[in-house]
Amino acid sequence: MTLDRLSHDDLIARERELDAAYRAFQEAGLALDLTRGKPSPAQLALSDGLGTLDGDLLAADGTDTRNYGGLDGLPEARALGAELLAVRPDEVIAGGNSSLTLMYLYLLNAWLRGPAGDGSAWRETPGGARFLCPVPGYDRHFTILEDLGIEMLPVPMRDDGPDMDLVEAQVQADPSIKGIWCVPKYSNPSGQIYSDETVDRLARLATVAGAHFRIMCDNAYAVHDLDDDPPPLASIMAACRRHGTEDSLVLFGSTSKITRAGAGISWVAGSAATLDWLRQRLGVLTIGPDKVNQLRHVRFLKDLAGIRAHMRRHAAILRPKFELVERRLSDGLGGEGMGAWTTPRGGYFVSFDALPGLATAIVTLAGDAGVKLTPAGATFPYGRDPDDANIRLAPSYPGLEELDQAMQVLVVCVQLASIRQRLDA
Amino acid sequence: MTLDRLSHDDLIARERELDAAYRAFQEAGLALDLTRGKPSPAQLALSDGLGTLDGDLLAADGTDTRNYGGLDGLPEARALGAELLAVRPDEVIAGGNSSLTLMYLYLLNAWLRGPAGDGSAWRETPGGARFLCPVPGYDRHFTILEDLGIEMLPVPMRDDGPDMDLVEAQVQADPSIKGIWCVPKYSNPSGQIYSDETVDRLARLATVAGAHFRIMCDNAYAVHDLDDDPPPLASIMAACRRHGTEDSLVLFGSTSKITRAGAGISWVAGSAATLDWLRQRLGVLTIGPDKVNQLRHVRFLKDLAGIRAHMRRHAAILRPKFELVERRLSDGLGGEGMGAWTTPRGGYFVSFDALPGLATAIVTLAGDAGVKLTPAGATFPYGRDPDDANIRLAPSYPGLEELDQAMQVLVVCVQLASIRQRLDA
Repeated sequence: MTLDRLSHDDLIARERELDAAYRAFQEAGLALDLTRGKPSPAQLALSDGLGTLDGDLLAADGTDTRNYGGLDGLPEARALGAELLAVRPDEVIAGGNSSLTLMYLYLLNAWLRGPAGDGSAWRETPGGARFLCPVPGYDRHFTILEDLGIEMLPVPMRDDGPDMDLVEAQVQADPSIKGIWCVPKYSNPSGQIYSDETVDRLARLATVAGAHFRIMCDNAYAVHDLDDDPPPLASIMAACRRHGTEDSLVLFGSTSKITRAGAGISWVAGSAATLDWLRQRLGVLTIGPDKVNQLRHVRFLKDLAGIRAHMRRHAAILRPKFELVERRLSDGLGGEGMGAWTTPRGGYFVSFDALPGLATAIVTLAGDAGVKLTPAGATFPYGRDPDDANIRLAPSYPGLEELDQAMQVLVVCVQLASIRQRLDA
Repeated sequence: MTLDRLSHDDLIARERELDAAYRAFQEAGLALDLTRGKPSPAQLALSDGLGTLDGDLLAADGTDTRNYGGLDGLPEARALGAELLAVRPDEVIAGGNSSLTLMYLYLLNAWLRGPAGDGSAWRETPGGARFLCPVPGYDRHFTILEDLGIEMLPVPMRDDGPDMDLVEAQVQADPSIKGIWCVPKYSNPSGQIYSDETVDRLARLATVAGAHFRIMCDNAYAVHDLDDDPPPLASIMAACRRHGTEDSLVLFGSTSKITRAGAGISWVAGSAATLDWLRQRLGVLTIGPDKVNQLRHVRFLKDLAGIRAHMRRHAAILRPKFELVERRLSDGLGGEGMGAWTTPRGGYFVSFDALPGLATAIVTLAGDAGVKLTPAGATFPYGRDPDDANIRLAPSYPGLEELDQAMQVLVVCVQLASIRQRLDA
């Protein structure tokens, strides 16, 4: 029965039932957490083999990984990143435990000094630099821009990526727009994979936007498939090559959700000019990344085929969790007109859109019943969801039983908030 | 026979002899390197035990080090850093593989946003911010300041630390001076240990210089003693507490020259206000440091006593190298009036002062004979040694035989350059 067909009395009766169910959850003293995309202990254990791989710590070229040096990272770590990000090995620098830090350093320096030499500093943009942010998106991406005072302009996500008509129109109309954030595969949180056409149109942007425009492309979920025959993502660098816009693309990746979260390795990829510039910038603040950890990772994962085999083991753990989320949402909310959600084929999130105006209330209700959800608004620049509708669900960390409980609570909270909104209308 | 007692004919004869010796070195096709303070393979092997310590990767408080989180680092890693830096555990954040990165991030943010809230940004200093730099000093420290456009003012080092009369006078006279670099123990490259009085006077600086002044204290060689009864360094934080200037002190340390160079762990220490500010700043660019590596380090090193025992094994390898350098310099240059050098009790360097105007020539001569030395001037801000005299020698990496050869070459180059200078005078 959809919400808008219920009579006032039905609504009152339903509210009473739901309120009782909600109180029961409250009394159960739950402490569940669906906030962040953290791998579960079972997933982390898949990489415990990393621990026994030290042995001889010489890289293939004889580099002693235990000593200083090598700003670019180990050649074999760069080669692995190149496979993952679909670029050439000489287009990759292998870094430390955090791709987020590489993203920050890129944006900081583009803002402070300019990504393309003298006169290109984004901070000198008349009226201030701006950035396109597909929404819903990743809060940590937004935080960096906010920290640098770069104004964020939301762009809606569609099934095949950001709304490219709007992106192109905005870039054409407003030269203060200096870039766009992208998570091209299993977009955080809404799970879309950019279509070939979107990739091609992105690669063409710089021909309009000019030499200071950058695509910050965080391919965090490049191999994080749930299916055995995952959907492909076209090489964005290859598309840029076709259009002569290689300098506009900066790609990022990491093994944080492949091996160990926070103790993996990271990559940044770009054109020769981009990497030369990055080397200069990085050389000020580091002698080089942890090459021992890079060597461990290469020995453990070997190559892209090794990564794919490893990711299938992750999928075997994650798939039942995503299926459970889907089942609970379908069973509890299907056909009720109380919201819509994604059914992603990979990545770490399910994106739930409540009825407009209810996300904050639902998150508060769930929190008061012991289920922590990502704060409403977190998936939008400045934490402001204009519809107060989007909630990011992260099912990876809890066990199946906990997840099941949390989803039951969530469903009741969504129903309760929706009915109450209707009653108040 | 000292240089100034040689007759013109003696000088000519000596130059001929030395030139022949120099040519013989050139023909030997040497490829030796005394440029950087890198541990030798034998030193690195002392920490190979790190490789087998993964096992159960839970920290003492139950934290799964394989997962995200924990901007401060592991409690046990913080405790270890606190012992090393002579501060309280709650005054330390344990970081990633590079203390240099922590230094950069501190200075960047002090410059960009200010170390003490609104209105304290160093970049807003009328006429531009300035920084005191004891010389000779560490080139990477200078590079960060140069990169940020902070003007560097050299201050001579004395036996007990920087010339504090000059430091105090400058800080008093010039409010645009925002800080001072310090390597308080086995100063890089000249090896001094700051005296108790110097430490106390440093701690008092902020009472004159004001709330935006910072002591950037890189205690890189805190435990890097060559002797069994090493000279002590007073706790700088304790001195700051006496004077109520805790906010002015930022301390750094790492295990780069304790365990693995570039694959160790790092620390930054400061007051509660400093760390709160740092957490905010670091939170923008990282989810946290590599806790697995922190746990490995704590399990391997255990505590300060464990570190000291470990450092004695380093000393057993390093001491013969420093003794060899001293012997070659004494034998070849003692009483010749061709230069002066340090005989450090720890750290990684010997600082050699040639006759004024000769450092560049000596480095070039040595390079042409296959012995790479740190570029002349590198130990001064902007690479400008006003006397063109200082050369930093790094004896740690080469084997004894190679080091011996390199020192013989160096001695001949110093003699040759000195004699030629005399002949040209």
